[in-house]
Amino acid sequence: MTITTKSLEITTKGFTDIIDITAHLRDILKNESYKQGHMVVFIPGSTAALTTVEYEPGLEKDLKEKFEEWIPMNKRYHHNETWHDGNGYAHVRASMLKPSLTIPFTNGTLRLGTWQQVILIDFDNRRRNREIIVQLMGEA
Amino acid sequence: MTITTKSLEITTKGFTDIIDITAHLRDILKNESYKQGHMVVFIPGSTAALTTVEYEPGLEKDLKEKFEEWIPMNKRYHHNETWHDGNGYAHVRASMLKPSLTIPFTNGTLRLGTWQQVILIDFDNRRRNREIIVQLMGEA
Amino acid sequence: MTITTKSLEITTKGFTDIIDITAHLRDILKNESYKQGHMVVFIPGSTAALTTVEYEPGLEKDLKEKFEEWIPMNKRYHHNETWHDGNGYAHVRASMLKPSLTIPFTNGTLRLGTWQQVILIDFDNRRRNREIIVQLMGEA
Repeated sequence: MTITTKSLEITTKGFTDIIDITAHLRDILKNESYKQGHMVVFIPGSTAALTTVEYEPGLEKDLKEKFEEWIPMNKRYHHNETWHDGNGYAHVRASMLKPSLTIPFTNGTLRLGTWQQVILIDFDNRRRNREIIVQLMGEA
Repeated sequence: MTITTKSLEITTKGFTDIIDITAHLRDILKNESYKQGHMVVFIPGSTAALTTVEYEPGLEKDLKEKFEEWIPMNKRYHHNETWHDGNGYAHVRASMLKPSLTIPFTNGTLRLGTWQQVILIDFDNRRRNREIIVQLMGEA
Repeated sequence: MTITTKSLEITTKGFTDIIDITAHLRDILKNESYKQGHMVVFIPGSTAALTTVEYEPGLEKDLKEKFEEWIPMNKRYHHNETWHDGNGYAHVRASMLKPSLTIPFTNGTLRLGTWQQVILIDFDNRRRNREIIVQLMGEA
């Protein structure tokens, strides 16, 4: 049993930008000699989150519209009164969706569904350079 | 330290079918010799998700009604315009609830609360045969 | 590779009480000799959940208001008709937010963002003494 911790640098446009990071995660796993174990994916920061989706333009729009309806950008947030940075909505969305995801792998392959991609959603109200932590734990 | 990866075959009725999988998870743990570690539970696929609940008929209805109110089946989804399979709502619900759950165990026992069960929710709009990945990592 | 399982006793006021547990988690990690690995945080029970947030009074109010708007305390819940304990809202909120969180660490330090704290949210409608399970898995 062993551990490897890598990170992934992703530049986002913010404003609920949805980015498919699956290929990067597969590359990280392929470049190591792990056979069986799990991958912990974690986004440091409080205005972005991780989940999975069938990544296609329709669902990208559906997710954005649902977040805007559920936790609108331009509502009044107490956070904005404190910091005046206007991203209260982004904090609330990120807390609801949460920053961690754990994906098992066997035979060196992530056990995702065929149409299931891992996405980073950056809710912040500006461009951001994000670092995603990717940790492999398992056996060769 | 060692790892075991098992899978669980579950047939669902779809349409936000909520299935208590706790007994299956306990059986998997009991049949192995692990004492301390954690269990990663993961559902491959983009129209189902995992969480915990006090599994009783009232809360089963409450969760179904809340999902229907929050992300209604018969609203307009861009996903449906692309694929015409009518399950856009199921994708959005699954992305919001997420496919992974990690449960620690000690003395060979999952550290769930007394009234806390692990559930699969299948949001898809048809019957599905689901495979849930259950991975144990820990020591005997 | 080794494992340590600790628990954290937290007294809450209930009613969506939001408690920053980051310092406790850092103390647990500091008192062990782990360098690289991950921390699984899990709340047994079906009326509380874990996530991260920039912990400041504005966002504390924003999260409480959002939960009250989304899953109101005083709506009709089938759970309340069964048990008459009036905390149906708390169960639904906890199921939606989920009880587990996994945080990687390197050099003995949790890889949280600078403004990202780990919070317990207790949704129940009374004071509770909670036990949070904190499990470290990794190498020295």
